[in-house]
Amino acid sequence: MIATERMAQLEATLAGFYQQAVANRLNEAVLYSLQAGGKRIRPMIFLQLIEDLGRQATEADYQVAACLELIHTGSLIHDDLPAMDDDDYRRGRLTNHKVFDEATAILAGDGLFLDPFGFLAQADLPAQTIVELVRELSQASGTFGMVAGQILDMAGEKQKLDVEQLRVIHANKTGKLLTFPFVAAGLVTDQSEAVIAHLREAGRLVGLAFQVRDDILDVTASFEELGKTPQKDLRADKSTYPALMGLEASRIFLEETLSQALEELEKVAELTAFSPEKIKKIIESLRLDG
Amino acid sequence: MIATERMAQLEATLAGFYQQAVANRLNEAVLYSLQAGGKRIRPMIFLQLIEDLGRQATEADYQVAACLELIHTGSLIHDDLPAMDDDDYRRGRLTNHKVFDEATAILAGDGLFLDPFGFLAQADLPAQTIVELVRELSQASGTFGMVAGQILDMAGEKQKLDVEQLRVIHANKTGKLLTFPFVAAGLVTDQSEAVIAHLREAGRLVGLAFQVRDDILDVTASFEELGKTPQKDLRADKSTYPALMGLEASRIFLEETLSQALEELEKVAELTAFSPEKIKKIIESLRLDG
Repeated sequence: MIATERMAQLEATLAGFYQQAVANRLNEAVLYSLQAGGKRIRPMIFLQLIEDLGRQATEADYQVAACLELIHTGSLIHDDLPAMDDDDYRRGRLTNHKVFDEATAILAGDGLFLDPFGFLAQADLPAQTIVELVRELSQASGTFGMVAGQILDMAGEKQKLDVEQLRVIHANKTGKLLTFPFVAAGLVTDQSEAVIAHLREAGRLVGLAFQVRDDILDVTASFEELGKTPQKDLRADKSTYPALMGLEASRIFLEETLSQALEELEKVAELTAFSPEKIKKIIESLRLDG
Repeated sequence: MIATERMAQLEATLAGFYQQAVANRLNEAVLYSLQAGGKRIRPMIFLQLIEDLGRQATEADYQVAACLELIHTGSLIHDDLPAMDDDDYRRGRLTNHKVFDEATAILAGDGLFLDPFGFLAQADLPAQTIVELVRELSQASGTFGMVAGQILDMAGEKQKLDVEQLRVIHANKTGKLLTFPFVAAGLVTDQSEAVIAHLREAGRLVGLAFQVRDDILDVTASFEELGKTPQKDLRADKSTYPALMGLEASRIFLEETLSQALEELEKVAELTAFSPEKIKKIIESLRLDG
């Protein structure tokens, strides 16, 4: 399927979750951030992998993809709050709490964390697959994943970190939720444990690359390119890959990490029917000249 | 099982979830609020119902009970935030954001919303039962339940509501999460749809009674009795059952609602082996002279 069609079906699935509203203002706030025009990189990876593993994505797969995006969006809303990163802009638009108010933004994020598990539970998938998806998504996002990474990240702002500490922060803060689409694609297509292990490792490496790239772009890109205030990390004297390794070494590290991720996908292709050309293209697009 | 033993096993289950920490400060904040000495009314109802339905509660049942308490605790932490109810005390102790800070309190609540679904997914229960528990818990708490109720409640502070509007707010804000233990007890003991429907209605009525009681106590109880600032609703000129119906009519409404809940449990006893004496005692304890 071509990317624009896939994107349209994903957007329809996201909006469909929130057609029935108990509280209109809450729904408005949720949809404002859900429809802020993100690149949907996590769902797109998941849906592409399913196709590359040999079948068309089903309605249930789109629901899984959308659930992942709900949690990601919830985390962005909470990250932007005054008590957290205190950002006024996200993707070039005012942040949720600037358009609505702080209480509404807190509750919109809460809803985006609590709803997707119920949506997963209603997907037309075997019960055992749903249970595994719920477990993976919860562990990737909560106290043993993304949320822990955010606390570590804030604590790290006050001190000089080394590269290993930085790796642990980002493995949790952004890495695990970027690994989920790789693992989940293996689960919904009923792959062997060995295949899922390689997919998980590919996801981990892509997650790492994503953060290194983000850190590099904070230094080198403009407001228009980023859709948010650039050089925020730099001004905050934050530990980043460029700050710790230097800009050039960070670029090399990014290239190497992406290459390792592609190698993991080659290993998947050795174990099962898998045409990794298109997913490779998505991963290649994370290269800085991509 | 006697209540103190049950409470001890529940506390152990709650603490057990958070033995492995990725971020210590996050775990501290989560445990601070989890171990604030709540009455655990929701888990206690769930565990008592299982016993009344004819079997001893298993380790998996305690895990389900604990998951419910995680979401309830997360909602209390977020409710107390400056942007929400701005409370300094909860259960006689400083609120989470007063002991830690606002960002940590936001993230602790986020973790308490995201983690329980993963814990449910690991419980030793049939996959189909887990899927139904996940769906019920998510729908009771997110955008179609508790979180919607909180938005409606805040919006309602600025206007005069009627009793029906108040009922819708509380059915969502507190009612659905108080209904969950009734429905979940039916699910884990594999009851018929008819039994689960009566349990759900009993839960709905207990949830309503709980809110009416809370509103009455805000008017009549002291700081020591409540563990928090009394007459907050009164001073905020908030729509409450006593404000709309009068205090005496609210007392009568509470009594009637509790009696209806007990009648629903009688109907369960007509359909299946069920000894409702102990759960009735818990519900009777919600009477104001109880």
